[in-house]
This record gives sequence, structure tokens and C-alpha cells, in this order.
Amino acid sequence: MWPLALVLVLLNCHIVASVSIINTLPGFSGNLPFKLETGYVGVGDLDDVQLFYYFIESERSPKEDPLLLWLSGGPGCSGFSGLVYEIGPIMFNYANSSGNKPTFLLNPYSWTKVANIIFLDQPVGTGFSYAKSWQGYETGDISSAAHTYEFLRKWLKDHSQFLKNPLYIGGDSYSGITVPIVVQEVSNGNEVGHEPPLNLKGYVLGNPFTGPTYDLNSRIKFAHRMALISDTLYESTKINCKGEYVQVDPSNAPCVENLQEVTECTQNIFYDQILEPKCSTTSPNPKIFKWDQNFDGENFLDVLHHPTKPQCRIYNSLFSNIWANDKTVQNALHVQEGTIKGWERCNDSLSSNYANDVSTCIDYHRNLTKKNLRALVYSGDHDMVVPYVGTQEWIKSLNLSDDYQWRPWFVNGEVAGLVATLNFS
Amino acid sequence: MWPLALVLVLLNCHIVASVSIINTLPGFSGNLPFKLETGYVGVGDLDDVQLFYYFIESERSPKEDPLLLWLSGGPGCSGFSGLVYEIGPIMFNYANSSGNKPTFLLNPYSWTKVANIIFLDQPVGTGFSYAKSWQGYETGDISSAAHTYEFLRKWLKDHSQFLKNPLYIGGDSYSGITVPIVVQEVSNGNEVGHEPPLNLKGYVLGNPFTGPTYDLNSRIKFAHRMALISDTLYESTKINCKGEYVQVDPSNAPCVENLQEVTECTQNIFYDQILEPKCSTTSPNPKIFKWDQNFDGENFLDVLHHPTKPQCRIYNSLFSNIWANDKTVQNALHVQEGTIKGWERCNDSLSSNYANDVSTCIDYHRNLTKKNLRALVYSGDHDMVVPYVGTQEWIKSLNLSDDYQWRPWFVNGEVAGLVATLNFS
Repeated sequence: MWPLALVLVLLNCHIVASVSIINTLPGFSGNLPFKLETGYVGVGDLDDVQLFYYFIESERSPKEDPLLLWLSGGPGCSGFSGLVYEIGPIMFNYANSSGNKPTFLLNPYSWTKVANIIFLDQPVGTGFSYAKSWQGYETGDISSAAHTYEFLRKWLKDHSQFLKNPLYIGGDSYSGITVPIVVQEVSNGNEVGHEPPLNLKGYVLGNPFTGPTYDLNSRIKFAHRMALISDTLYESTKINCKGEYVQVDPSNAPCVENLQEVTECTQNIFYDQILEPKCSTTSPNPKIFKWDQNFDGENFLDVLHHPTKPQCRIYNSLFSNIWANDKTVQNALHVQEGTIKGWERCNDSLSSNYANDVSTCIDYHRNLTKKNLRALVYSGDHDMVVPYVGTQEWIKSLNLSDDYQWRPWFVNGEVAGLVATLNFS
Repeated sequence: MWPLALVLVLLNCHIVASVSIINTLPGFSGNLPFKLETGYVGVGDLDDVQLFYYFIESERSPKEDPLLLWLSGGPGCSGFSGLVYEIGPIMFNYANSSGNKPTFLLNPYSWTKVANIIFLDQPVGTGFSYAKSWQGYETGDISSAAHTYEFLRKWLKDHSQFLKNPLYIGGDSYSGITVPIVVQEVSNGNEVGHEPPLNLKGYVLGNPFTGPTYDLNSRIKFAHRMALISDTLYESTKINCKGEYVQVDPSNAPCVENLQEVTECTQNIFYDQILEPKCSTTSPNPKIFKWDQNFDGENFLDVLHHPTKPQCRIYNSLFSNIWANDKTVQNALHVQEGTIKGWERCNDSLSSNYANDVSTCIDYHRNLTKKNLRALVYSGDHDMVVPYVGTQEWIKSLNLSDDYQWRPWFVNGEVAGLVATLNFS
């Protein structure tokens, strides 16, 4: 027995050694008013893959509040992106950050007000996560979901005080593919008795990519609803292409021609938020977005102080690139030296080695509706990357019974959206 | 002959006496970098109605550039509202105005960069316009259009240097009703030889109210397109109400019920810009919006510095109410003392005495397409007061031939909208 025991001890040592409690962060004045932990968990063969995470305890009742594992999209977008730009407790103070010294504000709408959240750098090659061998960087939908499940079990073994908290898995954009696979893995693992049993309660998805049939086709319908293409062009395209705008028969000339007109109308739209301007990432200096190349600090400052376009959301990502590539910051986060070349908010180069082996996850959703889980799917209605109209359609295709009709959803007396509740069978 | 001559001299004296050139304005630092003139023109029986105007010369080539007469909507919204909140050369500096001392910035997108513009306080009872007798305040679509036409002829007689400039008449919102009537009056007047002949070239309308059939019915379609009501509710309402949501048969229970659900979904939406919050004008203190009642300056400051809701567009109107009710400002504008009780950006009380005697102006539009004129109709696509979908429909009903299909409209390389050109016969 003792060799096994030794391995376990070593494993525990390894995990304990890489867990750090962070009390202060460069750019945040004073002690952090929440509990932040960072660390690595080794997964895969011989723990070849080292997944980096940020864990923030609920600011309400960490013992009772849910534990949420948050996966950013991409694939290749860092956990820090979700933390600082989406649902975490700090956000950049754009007005009061000098070019090379980003500072932070507290986010009054942080989900950590009500939940314990793990922001995970996944798949390997994302954020501060790395592999010890080059083979370790080979990844895809299925293998990264397996790594994430392994991460979760190991992390909870080492943080057993959270084993009883309701567990949710969430993410947005491309994580619409990954999250349901991870949820399925957890559900399967629980059923076959993997240790520890995880207290899985459900999943959360925002503008989730689910597959090209619904999501990409729905962009045409969305463009019409949002007055980006005319009634005439929409009707003509719908008829000529028979509603299929992705898998197009190149010999269908009227359809191809209509789609060219649609492209002309929409190619300069910023798909992430159609009301904001589309700003080039290659102007004024492409190098400033490539952190493994020579960094030209002066031009970077130019962009921050004199952006070529007003309100360019994409320039906000410069703040995280500056911040997370700073050695002081990496030391504060207890990042292991020499493990990554350079940090990127979203590692686009990852996609060339990434196997998109689950083209649609609708079957996962259908299966999960039978597992006594809850699911929250929410959509911003000005997102043309994954338009809400496509999301509505695949949910409809699950043929769930209506609990309530769509009704207005109020926040402080303001209509903030529409909501419907559907029954899982 | 001499009594007639005397009258003319007096008339000229009267007009000349009420024209003022304004070089400085309270709240604007230094001399105005454009030519501003204000004045009154008497119209109607015995010049009983005194219409106040702001005239700003084109900052390019006043001799060649068009002359635009701009009519704000309401009815009852002041010319200053169009000047300072829409297309004029100055706008409020919200960030740097103290509660009782609004200041101005230059508007880099002012239409006065390319056009001479008259901002007219019409109909009588609007802004600084007044009547000498109480009967003079009786007004409506037809009579106010006649007053506006009379104003234009008298103003141009006194400013004959602009008689040869291309003349356009423009406005938005409720002026969708008024502008076509005025254009028709001018066209008719020219045809029967009224003096002076006006060099009418066309008209300009923004989100124009044209009549309830298209505009109000289109709100349901618009609410659906903008995801304010669900697919199911939209389809059901369309079928049950047979597409008519304004003139509803009260015994049609399914339709009435559907419309109640629609109301539930949309009643807390800010119709002017559906993405902005709906802010109460009666909170925190209703008095501050009633300038003929006691003015409570302290509470007003509270609103400006601690608005109860963020980004409440409606609170911006407080700046013009503060500014235009200031005696120093009224002196600077050469407003005649004692002629009005209090200034309001939009005089809502006017509507109770106002005859909406033209319920739809589509026949005016149809007639004007035969008059060798140009028309520009533009719509903001997040306006639910007069949604663009209804505007598209009434334009379509004119059966004009397409010169071009709808195509994207670019500003500095960004898609800023869609545009189509139609041929007047």
C-alpha cells in the first residue's frame, strides 16, 4: 500500500504548494475586500497539463452560497477576462489608468456578491495555463472538457469545505459548446461513482455558441430585425437560400448573390455589440497586440490616449494585456516563472491546434434536461456573434413545456429583458 | 395712397425693431463663433401672433448654402430644443455645468456648418412665441402651418439676401404632420403668385409622425423586432387583432387580452430610445418641471447632482429650463418682457387647446411627390415613438419607383444605417 499512499501525499503536496492567497494586487489600492486565491492544478497524463485558476469566495455566505466554475469562451480566452470584464469583483478604471499602470475599481454588480467563483484558464495554452510537454498542448472540445472535470474533482478534494455547496458550471460565447460537455462529464462521473461526488445543480450560459445551424443562420434573421438589411433583401435571401446561409450550394447563383449583398451590409458592423464601432486591431500598430513579439510601449500609450475611434471596446483588452504581462503582477499572482511566453486575454493562436470535435451540443442539452438539473440561458439582444434569435430557436427545438410565457423581466422597475421558464422533464 | 404707405413703413419698422444680433450668450465663454440673430415676426389678424425665432447663418457660405426652416415637434416644443439638443451649433456641457449655471460646448456636428437655419418657436404658445389676445392662442395643424408660411414670407422680405438660397423645411417627431402642410402652403403660394416667390427645393423629416395607422400600429411590430415581446405573443396579437392595434373593437376579447400583455411588456420602456432607462418626470419633485409654479431651486440642484436614475435623458431638459428662464439670458436673447409666463422646452399644456385637424399627412406627401421637390426622411432605429418600420411602410404605400435598393450608409468607414433612394414622379 505505501507506494500509493506516497503518491497521494506527493499529489497533495503538489496541490498545496501551488495554492496562494492574494491579499493585494498591483493597481488596486489597499487590501482586496474579498478573498482571492490563485493556483495550478495538474491534469492529464502525469499532470502534464497545469491549469491556472483564480478563486474568489462569495462576499455573502461562502459556506452556503453556490460554487460556480466559470469558463470563458474563445476557445482560448483567459479566466481573468471573465473576472475583470464580465462578472468578477474588480474592473479596470479606464478614466484613471495611465498607459502602463492600469488601476481597478470595485464592480458593484459582481456575481461574487452571491457565489463562490472559480475562473479557470482553459483549455491548456489559455492565460497562465501551460503544459510541460509540447504534446500536452494538443487539445479540443472533448479533451479540454475532460481536463476541466479532472480539475474540478482535484480542486474540490483540496477544498473539501466546498463539496456540499450547490455546484454550477457557467460560461459564455464558445463555452456554449464546452460547458454542456463538462456538465455531462460531471453527471456521468457522479453516476458511475467517481470520487468525490460533485453536488451538481445546473449550468449557466450567456449568448452561448451551440452549433452553426442555429447560431450562424440566425445572423441573417437578426440582421433584418436590427435593420441592418432591408425587408426586400431579407425575403429574397430567405427564399433563394431556403433558409440555409452557411452550407451554401455555390451553384445557387441567386443565393450566393444575395449573401454577397448581406455581407456588404454587415461586414463593417461590430458583431459583439452592433451599436458600437468596429475598430481595427491591426491599427495603428499591429505589434501591440502580439505580446510574444517586440513590445512597443510608446505606440501603446498612443492608442490608450488617442484611440483612433471613440468607444472602441476592443481597446479595453489592452489594459489586461499590459497588466497581466507585468512581472510585478505575475509575482503577485504567484505565476510560475518561465511557464508561458506571454499572456493574452484571448489566445487566438490556440485555435489552429484546437479540435472542434463537437460541432453542435444540442444533443448534450437534450440529454441534460433529463438529469434533474437547472439551466439558465441568457442573451444580450445586440450580440450578432451568437444572436438571441438562434438561441431561442434551438431551445424551442428541445420541445420543453412552457411553465410561463415570455414575460418582461424587471430590474429596479426598469424592463431589462424578457424571460421565460421551461420545464425539464 | 399714403395711409397704405404708412402701414407698410410701420410694418417694416416693427420687423426691424424686433431683430437683434446676438454676439454673446450667458454660459458660452467669449464671443459666439457664428452669427446668431433672434427676433419676432407678427402673423395672423393684426399681427396678433408674435412668433419668436433664432436664426444662425451657415458657417460655410451663407450666400450659397441652403436656408432651412426647422420646426421642433410636440406640438409645443421650442426651436431652442432643436438648436441645443439636436442640430444647432451649441450644446450643453453636462459635465461642467453647475446646477443653476448651465454652460455650453460647440457641437462639431452642427447642421449650421453647411446651412443657414431658422429655429422657429411654433405654434403660438411655444417657447417665447406669444399672442397679444387670448383668442390668438387658439391653434392647430392647419392654422399653425398658415402662420409658419406667413412668418417665412415676412422674414424673407426682411432678409431678402436669402431669397435666392435653396429653401428647405424640416423637423422631426410631430413636425411630421406640420412640415408637409407648410411645404404644401409654400408650393400653393408660389403657384398662385404670392410675394415673394420662395425658392422651395424640398423638405427633411426625422422619425416623423405621419398618422396613427402606420406609426402607432408599427409599434407592435417594432417591439417584436427589438425583442420586447415574444414571437408567440406577436403572432397571436397579429392574428387576433388583424393587424389593427389602435382602433380596437372592445368586444374582441382575445385581441384586447393580447394588447394588455403587450402593454405589460412595454409600459416601462423609454419609447424615445428603448435602450435608455425610463425616468419619471414627477420624481423627486414634480414642481421643478412646472416653471409657472414656485421654483424650488434646491431640489433642482439635487436632481442634477444626484439623479435618481443614471443616464436619464429627460433630465437634460432641466438645463434648458434653467437657462431659458434666467432673466439675464432672456435679456441677452432680446425677449420682450412680460410676454410669457414661463419658458418650457416643450409646452405640454398647449396640446389641450390644439386642434389636430390633420390626422394623417400621407395625402400631402403623395401630392408633394409631383412638385419637383426633394425629400429626406431619416429614422433612428431605436425610437419607439415613431418606429422606422411604420415610416418604411407609408413610404412604400406611395408606390415610388426604386432608384437604388436599400444599401449600407457609411460614415468614416462605419455602417451608420441603411439608405434607399426613391424617384418622385
